[in-house]
Amino acid sequence: MQALLLTIGDEILLGQTVDTNSTWLGQALNAIGIQVSRRITVSDQLADIQDALNYGWEKYDLVIMTGGLGPTKDDITKKAIASFFEVDLVFHQETWDRILRIFERIKRPTTEAHREQCYMPANAELLPNAMGTAPGMWFQQDGHILISLPGVPYEMMSIMQEEAIPRLEKQPGLIPIFHRTLLTAGMGESQIASRLDTFEKSLPEHIKLAYLPSLGQVRLRLSAYGGESSIRQKEIDHFAGLIYKEFGTAIYAEGDTSLEASVGQLLKERGLNLATAESCTGGAIAHQITSVSGSSGYYLGSVIAYHNELKTTQLGVLPEELAEFGAVSEPVVRQMVKGVLQTFHADVAISASGVAGPTGGSPEKPVGMIWIAVGNHTDIRTRELRLGKDRQKNIETTAVLALNELRLWILDHPEIVGTGISF
Amino acid sequence: MQALLLTIGDEILLGQTVDTNSTWLGQALNAIGIQVSRRITVSDQLADIQDALNYGWEKYDLVIMTGGLGPTKDDITKKAIASFFEVDLVFHQETWDRILRIFERIKRPTTEAHREQCYMPANAELLPNAMGTAPGMWFQQDGHILISLPGVPYEMMSIMQEEAIPRLEKQPGLIPIFHRTLLTAGMGESQIASRLDTFEKSLPEHIKLAYLPSLGQVRLRLSAYGGESSIRQKEIDHFAGLIYKEFGTAIYAEGDTSLEASVGQLLKERGLNLATAESCTGGAIAHQITSVSGSSGYYLGSVIAYHNELKTTQLGVLPEELAEFGAVSEPVVRQMVKGVLQTFHADVAISASGVAGPTGGSPEKPVGMIWIAVGNHTDIRTRELRLGKDRQKNIETTAVLALNELRLWILDHPEIVGTGISF
Repeated sequence: MQALLLTIGDEILLGQTVDTNSTWLGQALNAIGIQVSRRITVSDQLADIQDALNYGWEKYDLVIMTGGLGPTKDDITKKAIASFFEVDLVFHQETWDRILRIFERIKRPTTEAHREQCYMPANAELLPNAMGTAPGMWFQQDGHILISLPGVPYEMMSIMQEEAIPRLEKQPGLIPIFHRTLLTAGMGESQIASRLDTFEKSLPEHIKLAYLPSLGQVRLRLSAYGGESSIRQKEIDHFAGLIYKEFGTAIYAEGDTSLEASVGQLLKERGLNLATAESCTGGAIAHQITSVSGSSGYYLGSVIAYHNELKTTQLGVLPEELAEFGAVSEPVVRQMVKGVLQTFHADVAISASGVAGPTGGSPEKPVGMIWIAVGNHTDIRTRELRLGKDRQKNIETTAVLALNELRLWILDHPEIVGTGISF
Repeated sequence: MQALLLTIGDEILLGQTVDTNSTWLGQALNAIGIQVSRRITVSDQLADIQDALNYGWEKYDLVIMTGGLGPTKDDITKKAIASFFEVDLVFHQETWDRILRIFERIKRPTTEAHREQCYMPANAELLPNAMGTAPGMWFQQDGHILISLPGVPYEMMSIMQEEAIPRLEKQPGLIPIFHRTLLTAGMGESQIASRLDTFEKSLPEHIKLAYLPSLGQVRLRLSAYGGESSIRQKEIDHFAGLIYKEFGTAIYAEGDTSLEASVGQLLKERGLNLATAESCTGGAIAHQITSVSGSSGYYLGSVIAYHNELKTTQLGVLPEELAEFGAVSEPVVRQMVKGVLQTFHADVAISASGVAGPTGGSPEKPVGMIWIAVGNHTDIRTRELRLGKDRQKNIETTAVLALNELRLWILDHPEIVGTGISF
């Protein structure tokens, strides 16, 4: 079953609102084997909506419209639908009774706009809305389905989950889709692509590999379309196995998680607590670690020694070292780890110092040169990064690579466990 | 000029990536008087791209394609474009030389995929990419323009800002638009809307006010469409003056800057240096401050005391205080400011401690309850925030509101100057 998502709203075209509804719908439909083949966003103009609806109904098995149903908007969507199916808008007493009950309960008066919400295209099957006043609508005819939903995200999601998805799952002809998404860190997209060149050429037609890159990370998504489910599952597992064989521990997890959550999980399993000592990253490593709910179970805190004097007073970097090697150097990040391990009584630590840019570079220490260190009291590993000229990118990439370096360090030290953390 | 945004990528249809590019493009185009009339997202399939390109080129003055330009296999945008214009793909030596220079500098080998990136449709005018390897492309023919950009957001934005927007601004037939964008912090969208209700009703037809909200901030953009430029400029200035009258210092700057840059500017002007002491924000305040290039001119560093013990050992919060009031309390954030002022020899400081959520709340201290403090040795101002249940939003919003609180504190202390900072 091929679907079109049709989003209605000037605020989306103007860039005032991010269209997260379509993102959520893409995931939800894909999970039940419905492929979103296209997304279209149009303005609140009747002609635009009708044009897109004509196109979608003809080309796709399923059209899901969001937006343009609610008490403050012109209910232009319903007019477009009624005109498309050549039916009248009829008053729906049951919906009106429900709205009256809701407003009685919250002791507020209804408005004329609420009454108008109860006019529906005559051929609509209503999908009750547990979260708001405007119900969703279901239209089915000649092998095509049209679903119209309010644009408010939690109302849209509620109607989908409670009403629309159970109905869709009963439709014949759903093509099963199987996915596995392998999450890698520390390798570039092109590096991965060149190592998977032969592999990709060996993939059968019905299996696809997609690269989803972000700073310092690439998600590799294997998808199998159609066919017998147990066979497809086995195929996907086989090809995933080959990717594991190629990249080993560069793959940190699968599916819907993050590097910071995976590192957190690893720390928890080992009972290790973590501290950080940051210079050029200015809190980005700490921020990433603490974006994980429950990070207080393994993360102690950080010294951000942006000023060099603090590297000395807070982290024990000797002024002679700073003078001889400079703040962006291997001995300094090494001492930053040692210093914060000692001051914070931490099991393991991460540090970073570099030239984030865009200014401040020199011939010996150009913009993008960044030293990171990870380790414990007995073994500290350091690494020099050579990144680009973009400040934000350098900071975020360093945070990702430093966290990944800690992960690899922990994996290389299977014997090391900590005593945990207690608050 | 009417534009179509054409986004390419299975990952967007699948809902694995949120399409923020289109949001950014909608705003950027609107700012120069180009209206986005439709957005279409298609898969990585050649036929889908060609179909949408045919449609867009025929119906719109401008088509902007994003995605499908990069060093991996799912790179078929260029093939679709070459076939659409019936031209060959030709090797572009200059781009290849540039890629070689980049990889020489970062000491990594290039791959065959990088070489393939250098093949361009013969009629493409290249738009240099300062942030990555794949250049953008500009096609102009028969009164239509097609721009193709990489999907990586910072590369797309960089090419637009440096190359494409200056070219688009020179096109004939753009309706002149005059903007002033007033940047506010600390007020909600609905709060602003209710205070501007009468003002908005008084605006003439050709002047629009748009609300562009982000966490803790709302940008107010006044736009005048068409007409004689000197008159429009005067009108815009008049209405901007009325908004200043209403909101005063809640407006921190105008145009294309950020709160963190404005606070940095203020600190520099006063010669004040800044330290931070963070708990629940876990580095987000420091990260925001240090995202500004040149922040080492006023920012010293931070103590992130995620673990309560560090609040005591590093910031001098008494264990009795923690026991009596809890870590999320006015006395604790006050002492965190005092502690970091003293340890770091700072002029002014910011602190934050709260329940970021989604877990860890209690009836007295629910999720979203966060204390912030700002000030110096003689005057510390504290504030209790009551935010929502979303962890990331709570952290980011707190960072914005804390920085804004420091800004207001500095404005309220015009007599206070510092001795600057030297590295």
